[in-house]
Amino acid sequence: MKADSLTPPRARFLRACRRLPVDRTPVWFMRQAGRYLPEYRALRRRYSLLELCRQPDLAVEVTLQPVRRLGVDAAILFADILLPLIPMGADLAFHPGRGPVINNPLREEADLARLRPVQVEEDLGYVLETVRLLRRELPAEVPLIGFAGAPFTVASYLIEGGSSRYFLHTKQMLYRRPDLWRRLMGRLVPVLTEYLVAQAEAGAQALQIFDSWAGALSPQDYRAYVLPYLRPMIARVRETGVPVILFGTVTATLLEAMAEAGADVIGVDWRVPLDVAWERLGPDLALQGNLDPAALFAPPEELARRVEDVLRRAGGRPGHIFNLGHGVLPQTPVEALQQVVDLVRRDAIVPISPGDGGPA
Amino acid sequence: MKADSLTPPRARFLRACRRLPVDRTPVWFMRQAGRYLPEYRALRRRYSLLELCRQPDLAVEVTLQPVRRLGVDAAILFADILLPLIPMGADLAFHPGRGPVINNPLREEADLARLRPVQVEEDLGYVLETVRLLRRELPAEVPLIGFAGAPFTVASYLIEGGSSRYFLHTKQMLYRRPDLWRRLMGRLVPVLTEYLVAQAEAGAQALQIFDSWAGALSPQDYRAYVLPYLRPMIARVRETGVPVILFGTVTATLLEAMAEAGADVIGVDWRVPLDVAWERLGPDLALQGNLDPAALFAPPEELARRVEDVLRRAGGRPGHIFNLGHGVLPQTPVEALQQVVDLVRRDAIVPISPGDGGPA
Repeated sequence: MKADSLTPPRARFLRACRRLPVDRTPVWFMRQAGRYLPEYRALRRRYSLLELCRQPDLAVEVTLQPVRRLGVDAAILFADILLPLIPMGADLAFHPGRGPVINNPLREEADLARLRPVQVEEDLGYVLETVRLLRRELPAEVPLIGFAGAPFTVASYLIEGGSSRYFLHTKQMLYRRPDLWRRLMGRLVPVLTEYLVAQAEAGAQALQIFDSWAGALSPQDYRAYVLPYLRPMIARVRETGVPVILFGTVTATLLEAMAEAGADVIGVDWRVPLDVAWERLGPDLALQGNLDPAALFAPPEELARRVEDVLRRAGGRPGHIFNLGHGVLPQTPVEALQQVVDLVRRDAIVPISPGDGGPA
Repeated sequence: MKADSLTPPRARFLRACRRLPVDRTPVWFMRQAGRYLPEYRALRRRYSLLELCRQPDLAVEVTLQPVRRLGVDAAILFADILLPLIPMGADLAFHPGRGPVINNPLREEADLARLRPVQVEEDLGYVLETVRLLRRELPAEVPLIGFAGAPFTVASYLIEGGSSRYFLHTKQMLYRRPDLWRRLMGRLVPVLTEYLVAQAEAGAQALQIFDSWAGALSPQDYRAYVLPYLRPMIARVRETGVPVILFGTVTATLLEAMAEAGADVIGVDWRVPLDVAWERLGPDLALQGNLDPAALFAPPEELARRVEDVLRRAGGRPGHIFNLGHGVLPQTPVEALQQVVDLVRRDAIVPISPGDGGPA
């Protein structure tokens, strides 16, 4: 795979990941495969979320739905960040309206001891099979993004037993049992790293690490408990030659530390205007974002104004990937997402010079 | 009241609000009157939250509990930011474990028309009576803080029908019906302003405005939909001569805009180190904060390290008021809060020069 990274990619999404010139800003949406799509809801009436993830033909279908419907510039594998926890022994269930629940949360020494070792190829082979099938199905100009949760965010679900507002159990482990946290990271990080590497080897052309809840931490805690694990993980994953996107929300005070994690692209939420983020992070990073998902509920003129504001703040830099600041909300009108794709497509801000390997 | 502000106050909390020298950093805690205290829980077994708020003798007792127990440098009136919504017609209930619920949320034109006018002295007289009683009960060195919710945060509860994760109904009103938002602000802002002024006139010596959820907005939206209402509100309230504290969480990208609202003190959460906040805001503002409430679950040595880190970053500036970055969590051990008070008390960082009106 490594050699690929030496030839400039043609697809505009991959070019933007590497800050190469593009004909126009690429656009895709976090959670673009999901509940806002009627064709997804139709499948969900017949299959549970986990069934959709575990049956590669269904996961392929769900991944392709927004590509067909919206014409986005990248596909993201349909999966869930908590899947690697299942072979580790987490009793995971998805309750409608409540999100994921882990019935045996990890709080103590003994819970850590009970974690089972994971063989990625075997235990998560269904994800890798989905990746392989998708690479055959997807057109060349629509690269496939694989992903995993970041160690902090995945651990927070495992420790809290689900999603959380204050992350009190997680922070208690950081503050009271830093040794236990280190050992938990020692178990989780290799699994998540191998999982991402295996996705790249199966054909994923970019990898996003979702650290959605790292923003619950102060910058000091982020540097102490998160960064030391992200850095080697990202270094190892980048050896595959595939670009890495590090995403989080509420990260306004974490951006500089996130940049030190070594990803190619930083995904930012709507709280940090992109011009401000770029000024702080410098020109050597690509940025992904950052329309507020709630803007998709605005009337067309107002939505257009907000899309244009994001593009204007990105300033036509080749390293900008248009996205939301967080995932598509289930109630989102499909037409709004279509409008965003159409607007970004129309906005041909950076003319590409001929012969430099840009998309055909 | 105005004349009071010309004489330097003696109580160190009030001195810090005005960035006057203090013998040591004052300390109090948001939600210091509340569920973590056994004496509060004992009362709650007999009275509902609203009963405690509405009976001045009980509200006084609850306000005094943490003053007696912890020896904090300020008392905060026991009340709820949603009380002013009740006379406006909100069908408000507090469900254990679920927080506040408003059964008739405001979403449409017709809901706005149904809002009833409020006579603060009459409809919220029980709060003002509590303030008057408290001023008699409290020792001179423990000033009384009154408070109200900020227009955005109060409106968000009214529109969402309770607390929220994504504030989708509220943002939909901002983006789809800015006219309705303006008219809602036209109803809410005068009530909240008069409510704060009446608290000052009844004896509150400082006023905190809780804009706990403003951090859901981008800086652009904050400037468009929040700041224009906060600015005249704070200007009017400051005419009473009482200092104003403006607090919010997840405000890392809002701080400069918050400063423009004209408050004397900005309350910041743990995500922005105080030295960084002060560098950004300049020396003309006092800062309140900002220990992570989860730090109170750390073992004593680790908690001490974190308290010292806050004090070190505050750098001994006279305008620092030690507080948490958000309210005390219900499960918090009382001893941890006591430890924080003791540590801040011991840390006599700014020797006061004789004769400048410092506390006796």
